[in-house]
Amino acid sequence: MDRITALDRTVTAPVVPDGLDTPAVIVDLDRVDANIERMQALLDGRGVALRPHAKTHKSPFFADRQLAAGAVGITVAVLGEAEVMADAGIEDIFVAYPLWAVGAKARRLVDLAGRSRLAVGADSVEGAEQLGRAAAQGAARFDVLIEVDPGEGRTGTDASRVVDVARAVTDAGLTLRGVFTHGGHAYRGPERVAGAADDEGTTLGAALHALNDAGFDLPVVSAGSTPTVAAASAAPITEERPGTYVFGDRQQVNLGGSDPGTLALAVAATVVSTAVAGGCVLDAGAKAIAKDKPDWLAGHGVVPQLPGAIIRSVYDHHAVLELPEDLPRPRVGDVVAVVPNHVCPVVNLTDELVLTRAGETVERLPVAARGRNS
Amino acid sequence: MDRITALDRTVTAPVVPDGLDTPAVIVDLDRVDANIERMQALLDGRGVALRPHAKTHKSPFFADRQLAAGAVGITVAVLGEAEVMADAGIEDIFVAYPLWAVGAKARRLVDLAGRSRLAVGADSVEGAEQLGRAAAQGAARFDVLIEVDPGEGRTGTDASRVVDVARAVTDAGLTLRGVFTHGGHAYRGPERVAGAADDEGTTLGAALHALNDAGFDLPVVSAGSTPTVAAASAAPITEERPGTYVFGDRQQVNLGGSDPGTLALAVAATVVSTAVAGGCVLDAGAKAIAKDKPDWLAGHGVVPQLPGAIIRSVYDHHAVLELPEDLPRPRVGDVVAVVPNHVCPVVNLTDELVLTRAGETVERLPVAARGRNS
Repeated sequence: MDRITALDRTVTAPVVPDGLDTPAVIVDLDRVDANIERMQALLDGRGVALRPHAKTHKSPFFADRQLAAGAVGITVAVLGEAEVMADAGIEDIFVAYPLWAVGAKARRLVDLAGRSRLAVGADSVEGAEQLGRAAAQGAARFDVLIEVDPGEGRTGTDASRVVDVARAVTDAGLTLRGVFTHGGHAYRGPERVAGAADDEGTTLGAALHALNDAGFDLPVVSAGSTPTVAAASAAPITEERPGTYVFGDRQQVNLGGSDPGTLALAVAATVVSTAVAGGCVLDAGAKAIAKDKPDWLAGHGVVPQLPGAIIRSVYDHHAVLELPEDLPRPRVGDVVAVVPNHVCPVVNLTDELVLTRAGETVERLPVAARGRNS
Repeated sequence: MDRITALDRTVTAPVVPDGLDTPAVIVDLDRVDANIERMQALLDGRGVALRPHAKTHKSPFFADRQLAAGAVGITVAVLGEAEVMADAGIEDIFVAYPLWAVGAKARRLVDLAGRSRLAVGADSVEGAEQLGRAAAQGAARFDVLIEVDPGEGRTGTDASRVVDVARAVTDAGLTLRGVFTHGGHAYRGPERVAGAADDEGTTLGAALHALNDAGFDLPVVSAGSTPTVAAASAAPITEERPGTYVFGDRQQVNLGGSDPGTLALAVAATVVSTAVAGGCVLDAGAKAIAKDKPDWLAGHGVVPQLPGAIIRSVYDHHAVLELPEDLPRPRVGDVVAVVPNHVCPVVNLTDELVLTRAGETVERLPVAARGRNS
């Protein structure tokens, strides 16, 4: 894949406010509001709970809006994000990750459990036993969900061993709340999405069946990822954990997870050089738009105001833009909005988001959990 | 390229201190000291000035050590890094980037010029004219170096236009200090390094010849990048701007820029899952070790204590480790040191570095210019 896609050509970007020092990450709040409402309505319609993944925005500012719209709680990837959310008064947090709870991590886990309704992931007997030791040392209460692998091949046990992990959880004195998956293999290409969503339902069904047969009765069956939510939430799923939908990105548009007119985040960049023949270089490099590039997508981002343009390569502080031959060449000093491939690392790279409505800056929001990745 | 290289197998990593909460970025200060001394001695021996690029460490802590060892000043990529360095008392700073100096950037440039010996890059007549307008508005004094393209195809003018840019610089009332290149095409593979170093010398020579013929007499001829410095610093080069050498990384080892036993930075990570058959997952994902992966290098990093192991894929918070069949399988809870492909984005992603000597933590250093990417 070395070309811009037909869907890329339909993407629109938030408007860049005048006078911005670049690179800067801009967020269109009107689009965010609409994205939050749309996902909530979709899952309300299915009778499935929404527990958004906060690793996309890393900000209580957006988590509060998701909760106000009807989310049952939030999901995070690491204790550092959970701590920031708890500090901001968010009470219901699921760390969707197989934590190894020793040392400082065990102490942080116990502290968090004392001030929020907390659940964490486990995918092994050893991990569950270690969670039990951490809880016992701190006399802490938290729930556990067992991760099962829907065929992504990353983390998660399978249905044949899920009962062993469940017994380890309850033997450790912890409450087993449910099972969860992440259908990350949806990100291998648009043609994989529906299959990955089906895999999640099938895997969760098999795990639930094995656990029910062993006498476990679990209230929560939780699936993940924005593209698989868009594709399906079949029974026995009771909860979905999409994250990216709040802003959307180029990858989501091409996976069917976001509509092309709903993208709420872009990186404002300035053309700093046209010195190399045919070249056009922006000041938003890998430290601004990240290097995420799936095999099935060309380049590192698109620029909707330059139709057909694609970011061919990124360096730490440079992005080289490839332009169609028939497009007027941008001039040094022009400011453009780059739609990145993947929005989660972009938010993690910036210290602040420039919040906008109708192309005007309304607030500069520090990314509260930026750098909180342990 | 889908295999670990012979050079990868010779890499040694800093020792991870006991009891570290992971992921964490560790830096072996003894190795840093040796790397700084070695590069200074190499360039002293050639009679070439060293102006290290601070985008690698983003920290006055390390810049001060480089200056104490004999560096003539420092290089940065953006004004944000320059501001942090100037705040810490560093006086001689070169922003090796074609700045477009309008609005907030112009005001920041003028402020910096008032409190440091500053030089900035330009590669176009328009850019030089705009620098002149910014300087005039603030009655500021700074020097300019013209960037020339050694065949990397990113930024930089060519010898045919360098005189036009030089005239624009001096017509704008600014001092033209010299010319510079970045031989970034060295990063396209080990076989490109010597050629890229030659290209830098040739390009700079041609630019200098054109400028001398036009009556310009320039004191500084500056080349960049750790692998091209290792390969050569031929006349007319008077100054080198390597950055990565201070820590080194897997890419530098394979490019000949660092010796395998000198790498000073690693990411400490914990094995969090072995649930998927044959799999082993670490808690240091793309938000810790970044996604940098040149085409000519397999995977996203290596783990020297697990010989032959390679990080096959990274997600935001997971790294999937591929192990040779004959290697004992790590257990959940094991802590390992990951040697990343490219060290610059790793430092930019973390809030702090764990400084060590002989495997013991001596200090936790906040990354002073982290997030300062504009």
